Amino acid sequence: MTGRSRIGQTLGAESGTRFRAWDPARGVAIEPAFVSATDSEVERAAALAEAAAAEYRAASGAARGAFLRACAERLEARGDALVARAGQETALPEPRLRGELRRTANQLRLFAALAEEGSWVDARIDRSHPAQENQPRRPDLRSCLRPLGPVAVFGASNFPLAFSVAGGDTASALAAGNPVIVKAHPAHPGTSELAAEAILEAARASGAPDGVFSLLFDSGVEIGAALVRHPAIRAVGFTGSLAAGRRLMDLAAARAEPIPVFAEMGSVNPVFVLPEALAERGAALAAGLHASATLGAGQFCTKPGLVFLPGAGTAATSFTRELAQRIQTTPPATLLTRGIAEAYCRGVDERAGHAGVELLAKSAAPISTALFQVSSATLAANPKLEEELFGPALLLVRYGDEREALEAARRLPGQLTATLHATETDLRRNAGLVALLETKAGRLIVNGYPTGVEVSHAIVHGGPYPATSDSRATSVGTRAIFRFARPVCYQDAPEFLLPQELRDANPLGIWRLVDGEWTRAGL
Amino acid sequence: MTGRSRIGQTLGAESGTRFRAWDPARGVAIEPAFVSATDSEVERAAALAEAAAAEYRAASGAARGAFLRACAERLEARGDALVARAGQETALPEPRLRGELRRTANQLRLFAALAEEGSWVDARIDRSHPAQENQPRRPDLRSCLRPLGPVAVFGASNFPLAFSVAGGDTASALAAGNPVIVKAHPAHPGTSELAAEAILEAARASGAPDGVFSLLFDSGVEIGAALVRHPAIRAVGFTGSLAAGRRLMDLAAARAEPIPVFAEMGSVNPVFVLPEALAERGAALAAGLHASATLGAGQFCTKPGLVFLPGAGTAATSFTRELAQRIQTTPPATLLTRGIAEAYCRGVDERAGHAGVELLAKSAAPISTALFQVSSATLAANPKLEEELFGPALLLVRYGDEREALEAARRLPGQLTATLHATETDLRRNAGLVALLETKAGRLIVNGYPTGVEVSHAIVHGGPYPATSDSRATSVGTRAIFRFARPVCYQDAPEFLLPQELRDANPLGIWRLVDGEWTRAGL
Repeated sequence: MTGRSRIGQTLGAESGTRFRAWDPARGVAIEPAFVSATDSEVERAAALAEAAAAEYRAASGAARGAFLRACAERLEARGDALVARAGQETALPEPRLRGELRRTANQLRLFAALAEEGSWVDARIDRSHPAQENQPRRPDLRSCLRPLGPVAVFGASNFPLAFSVAGGDTASALAAGNPVIVKAHPAHPGTSELAAEAILEAARASGAPDGVFSLLFDSGVEIGAALVRHPAIRAVGFTGSLAAGRRLMDLAAARAEPIPVFAEMGSVNPVFVLPEALAERGAALAAGLHASATLGAGQFCTKPGLVFLPGAGTAATSFTRELAQRIQTTPPATLLTRGIAEAYCRGVDERAGHAGVELLAKSAAPISTALFQVSSATLAANPKLEEELFGPALLLVRYGDEREALEAARRLPGQLTATLHATETDLRRNAGLVALLETKAGRLIVNGYPTGVEVSHAIVHGGPYPATSDSRATSVGTRAIFRFARPVCYQDAPEFLLPQELRDANPLGIWRLVDGEWTRAGL
Repeated sequence: MTGRSRIGQTLGAESGTRFRAWDPARGVAIEPAFVSATDSEVERAAALAEAAAAEYRAASGAARGAFLRACAERLEARGDALVARAGQETALPEPRLRGELRRTANQLRLFAALAEEGSWVDARIDRSHPAQENQPRRPDLRSCLRPLGPVAVFGASNFPLAFSVAGGDTASALAAGNPVIVKAHPAHPGTSELAAEAILEAARASGAPDGVFSLLFDSGVEIGAALVRHPAIRAVGFTGSLAAGRRLMDLAAARAEPIPVFAEMGSVNPVFVLPEALAERGAALAAGLHASATLGAGQFCTKPGLVFLPGAGTAATSFTRELAQRIQTTPPATLLTRGIAEAYCRGVDERAGHAGVELLAKSAAPISTALFQVSSATLAANPKLEEELFGPALLLVRYGDEREALEAARRLPGQLTATLHATETDLRRNAGLVALLETKAGRLIVNGYPTGVEVSHAIVHGGPYPATSDSRATSVGTRAIFRFARPVCYQDAPEFLLPQELRDANPLGIWRLVDGEWTRAGL
């Protein structure tokens, strides 16, 4: 298998920059070389997607579902190859990758089921009224969500399957009826190519139009930028760093025709440990937090990075001792990429040298798991300490009293999650803190840990900026489909012109809001 | 009554710029003077709104509904004064303003009913599963839409009631649980003040928190810009020109913490007249189009500004003659503001002098209703002719054949509406045109006219840029509430911490998605 740049189902390689993946565990480059896409390949992928959009938007929910189920099957059929290659490219352990593959296939099937069932389109019918005195005739109005058009997807480095080529952004965009162009993450091009092959094979097998999916490689950022600027692209899905996400947001906002960018840009996921819970179960909490913060070498968007803890008391002292011991003896980690490892080590060194920051524990080099501690006053004076340090580091913030915890919470930027460890008494005493955290995060967790994001109907993997670009969206769970659709209203349209979802008899049997009442009956 | 700058319930005037409204019919300034808000008043309004947000987000749907119903009543109680003052400030005729008042009050009641019924929050519950082999315990996940926080609203000049202080943006933002700060349109400060008094009185009467609503005056654009840049503001609703809307979009996107702007920026609302329909009912079409294009002196966002017509044939000739006669004899119009009148007259002169543009008919000066004509080739070469000319002007575009009509449609920018006048045969022959128009507009009208936007569940008053800033939103109808809310997920939260919408027993009796099934039952 030679290196290539693959776009669409028809396009071969041009002469872009060659690059190889890197094996972070062994410290060597991995064959074969891949070729960055060129500007003209971006043009071709966009033209293919635009042409496919007209056909694919007309595909039924059943057809989209069949395509997504075929993607899941084809992905599973390549399971061993995917897990092996992803293991090389990311140093993530095999059981984790097997789990992620299962999650990715199930995610595709969940969106298949959503498309097949069909009620997600929010179909609404207001029947016409004849003219009355003072009032003209009211027309027949029917509306439902329709596809936006071609979507550009940027995969994340830390989930080479579930948030990458065949991940949630792709699954939800395809389920909504949009062609997808993925810009492969340069850290796992081989995994990306295998996943793209599965999708392309599924597209062919299920009769989806040519151009419904394309993959573009790039070792740099130019191809992604060209994609976001391209007039054919109607929306962007992204998971990655705040700097990269904001760059895409700014590019999209500066277009002649601005488009929405749904960027999930990470979070420190604050954890508030309240006094009674600490006294009751400090040791279990230390074990739980350690496990959550070091899971996947601390490379989850939902890693708990900031832990607020009472400043005094024996319970706090033994919790801290327990946590420090666990951190100290954490086995060495391997991070996803050289860039992440360098940024992490630099971040740990900076924190260790920061005035007012105490290094409580550190495991063996080169990638040390690290526990730092500050007072909430120091944190207040140094908001930079609230920024995400991607990797297995944890910052304890000691608060003097609950009012100080509330003030610290008020200063927090937007988060994917916020967690409370609290007894019922703690929660009732800190109602203000609870209410405030609800305004700061997409998901509020009580006596649990933020890592482990269920793919379900009720999940929200989103939150106020800078956690994401748009707090009204989630990138995980069935609500993610709403990012890539818009309502279209048909006024007095004859039956044969309407989408199936809006026809009198309700042939799909979906839930519809008819004259203000939800029903699955026909008219 | 002396002039003032009114914000919140508590703040008086500071020493901003004084300005007066202008009576466009009589050409005189109207007393009293109003005072532009100062930067420190923006600060105070924002601080009040932020403080109110915490309390108001906790208000029940019933409480929000009562507040909105009180707004409607208080507005109606001031009906005579509102209509009289709005008539002076806008030159809109009394029957139109009476109708707009009725629409505005009904719109407030529709959002009241939405808040009271409560199902709009899209409540979802995924119950926990115990741990199984290979799978950890699944937590209990519950989510629903929650308020975004303070919303800034910019009223439109052309609907001094329905799209202004107490209009759809305000109604939907308040219904969702957000405080609102309105920047009054400088063309109707007196109407704005009366509407604001109604809202403030309703807020006091229904126990809504101080700061839930504020009104700021400004004769210029600085106060609006300061509002959009203010960190307390979480979203913006706007109706007005493309230039002003885009300016706010750019300001919001450049914030340290970008916020969504929902700007409705107008449209030319293309109408495609297909051959058979033209032959069957050309005269009725000419009458209908004339009525729609000159309604309210052509100052509707949904005014049909661009009419595509077969280039040859006797039906086209008599349609054009009929329409030209009607345009010629249209009574003189008065436009909303001096600025609009100047821009309109300039636009008419520019068009009349434009190479390839034929002036077919023009009514008496100074504000002439005007009918222009171009070939679709000329339009293709001069995209500027596709821009909205706000006022009673109409541009006929003659197409050679249906393929040429399709190509012209492909070049159109995003629109609020697109209209087809067509027989069933026309529609079936032009399936490609119909499918294409669906991608260009928020509302597709068959054999009707785009003016007259129902306030209902199924309506969409939105569309791709530049019609609006975000095609996924509507500014009219109950779906407008989704602009101002975001999903929040509660993981393993005890019952007493959950919003009523997510509690086991479903005390509000709302529709909820429980383990993937819609139900109104409790758990």
